[in-house]
Amino acid sequence: MRKRAGPITQSGSLMSHPRIDVLTLGNAIVDVLAHTDEAFLVSKNVHKGAMQLIDEARAEELYNDMGPATIVSGGSAANTAAGIASLGVRAGFIGKVKNDETGNLFAHDLKAISVHYDVALAGDGPATARSFILVTPDGERTMNTYLGACQNLTPDDVNPATVEASAIVYLEGYLWDPPAAKEAFRKAVTIAHGAGNKVALTLSDSFCVDRYRDEFLGLMRDGSLDILFANIHELQSLFQTSDASTALAALRDEKVLGVVTRSEQGALVVSRGETLAVPAYPVAKVVDTTGAGDLFAAGFMAGLARDLSLTDCARLGGLAAAEVISHLGARPQASLLDLARQEGLLS
Amino acid sequence: MRKRAGPITQSGSLMSHPRIDVLTLGNAIVDVLAHTDEAFLVSKNVHKGAMQLIDEARAEELYNDMGPATIVSGGSAANTAAGIASLGVRAGFIGKVKNDETGNLFAHDLKAISVHYDVALAGDGPATARSFILVTPDGERTMNTYLGACQNLTPDDVNPATVEASAIVYLEGYLWDPPAAKEAFRKAVTIAHGAGNKVALTLSDSFCVDRYRDEFLGLMRDGSLDILFANIHELQSLFQTSDASTALAALRDEKVLGVVTRSEQGALVVSRGETLAVPAYPVAKVVDTTGAGDLFAAGFMAGLARDLSLTDCARLGGLAAAEVISHLGARPQASLLDLARQEGLLS
Repeated sequence: MRKRAGPITQSGSLMSHPRIDVLTLGNAIVDVLAHTDEAFLVSKNVHKGAMQLIDEARAEELYNDMGPATIVSGGSAANTAAGIASLGVRAGFIGKVKNDETGNLFAHDLKAISVHYDVALAGDGPATARSFILVTPDGERTMNTYLGACQNLTPDDVNPATVEASAIVYLEGYLWDPPAAKEAFRKAVTIAHGAGNKVALTLSDSFCVDRYRDEFLGLMRDGSLDILFANIHELQSLFQTSDASTALAALRDEKVLGVVTRSEQGALVVSRGETLAVPAYPVAKVVDTTGAGDLFAAGFMAGLARDLSLTDCARLGGLAAAEVISHLGARPQASLLDLARQEGLLS
Repeated sequence: MRKRAGPITQSGSLMSHPRIDVLTLGNAIVDVLAHTDEAFLVSKNVHKGAMQLIDEARAEELYNDMGPATIVSGGSAANTAAGIASLGVRAGFIGKVKNDETGNLFAHDLKAISVHYDVALAGDGPATARSFILVTPDGERTMNTYLGACQNLTPDDVNPATVEASAIVYLEGYLWDPPAAKEAFRKAVTIAHGAGNKVALTLSDSFCVDRYRDEFLGLMRDGSLDILFANIHELQSLFQTSDASTALAALRDEKVLGVVTRSEQGALVVSRGETLAVPAYPVAKVVDTTGAGDLFAAGFMAGLARDLSLTDCARLGGLAAAEVISHLGARPQASLLDLARQEGLLS
């Protein structure tokens, strides 16, 4: 018998959790991507550029009719964790898959890039979530998501030690869709703030904001959030305005650090004191915008973890987004750390 | 009860098979691709640039240790069929998968691009084949293939009507690896030549040539082959010479049309009468060479089907290869027909 009571970390405390810079919480999804044309979107009656939830029958119909598929792990918050890891920053992820072929791919892909992932794979219940992503020639992606096993994420899947060990906890708005997940979300917020950590939220999608506007505004106003990520359309949806400047002015009055992306127009970092505008990185050819927002958030938060200025955080976000939209799939294919070093943003 | 005896084609004959321009026969494989570095290849003791056969235990070990995966249908001859279809030319494929998740992806991806595929999916036996493909920063791919269900391709899987209906039957040398497949291969050759159709073979891989040199030479010399595809390394292996010109001179003495690729040095079309040199298409960045030879063969044979000159056949091959090496995965992501039209090679 070994005599030691438990693992001893460098700081000497018993049973302490390895430090994580950014822990992300979201729907654990594997993407099934195919190039398509505008006519196919029309024939399938899908809303271009949006994320729509679908059931199993619809998933089967879409898959049968769509083009040759490329399969890559996805999920908004998981993509963000992957981006953070690719920048050499410690990342973790909380989300639910089933112990099936697809779920094992998802878990493999996190392990392969050293993203901390301690959620148990479901032994039964619905299959691992898939998003059928249709990419049009302009590079725009339209997502059709079967949530499957994501429906079974519960507060029990949130390990308090993991949340306590994480300097930033990042949550995706999509988590409001599966019924039990928002309780996991709230548990993570409570633990994070109890430990003095920061909480960030991404609004995810304009239609998602439509579904949960009051709750998202409530989270921002009851002190649950420290940082809000949104693209300009989501922000306009949140404040119910067709005018971008009105939405930005409204954001300026909230008690959060706002990070707003505007595609090729770059990003704005909005606080009460100032608004910083940071240009987008040039991209030779936009192949697939899937993951652009996820990777922007990854770069921004990795920058925070490395104590960069807010402007450089946004630059790092833009750099990460530029890499991911230059190929099919929402996870980095190049080392983002190498790219950031070439740009002089990280050492 | 319907009275008609069978489907009637445009030409009015009963039970006739839809015409196919190029039917390819090969191992049906789904690729699991990951970026890696040279050190990983060394640590796993794999031969860079080659295809090595692996068993299930080795497959599991490699998968556990490799990076995040991108999953795309592959298989050399199937990639060729996909390329031909992408050029708007009628293609068919013969190869064996199991009726599992991976096998259904493979079949889906052929159906989605209208490649004729009438082989029954295996209900039991080993899983659908996977190739674990490690892509180094120079774009070179190193393949580790678990043959699985490919082992169960038999002559019964070769539908005589399909072979008779196909102007060119294209076979991959890799088919010599699964024990029963070479009988399917020989059956296809006999039927094709009986119907007055052409037969092509690709040598596939230098080590594959090492394993079956005498048999490949025999096929070429006993009149089984009309066209031989090889890269220069495979050709040197075939004729056991370290000198490229010696290998080319030897090829010139054989009774086949030889099509020899030499990476960025372009291709040679070799016959007794003449040797045509055709330059490679420029590629901005070589991301992943997987499928380069497969797509070259696709373009070349699609050119033959469209009655192009041999020089333009090789140009079309080069164009198709250039598209596929500019992204991860061995199947076209853009319409090759559109690219060929832009280049004025097809109308």
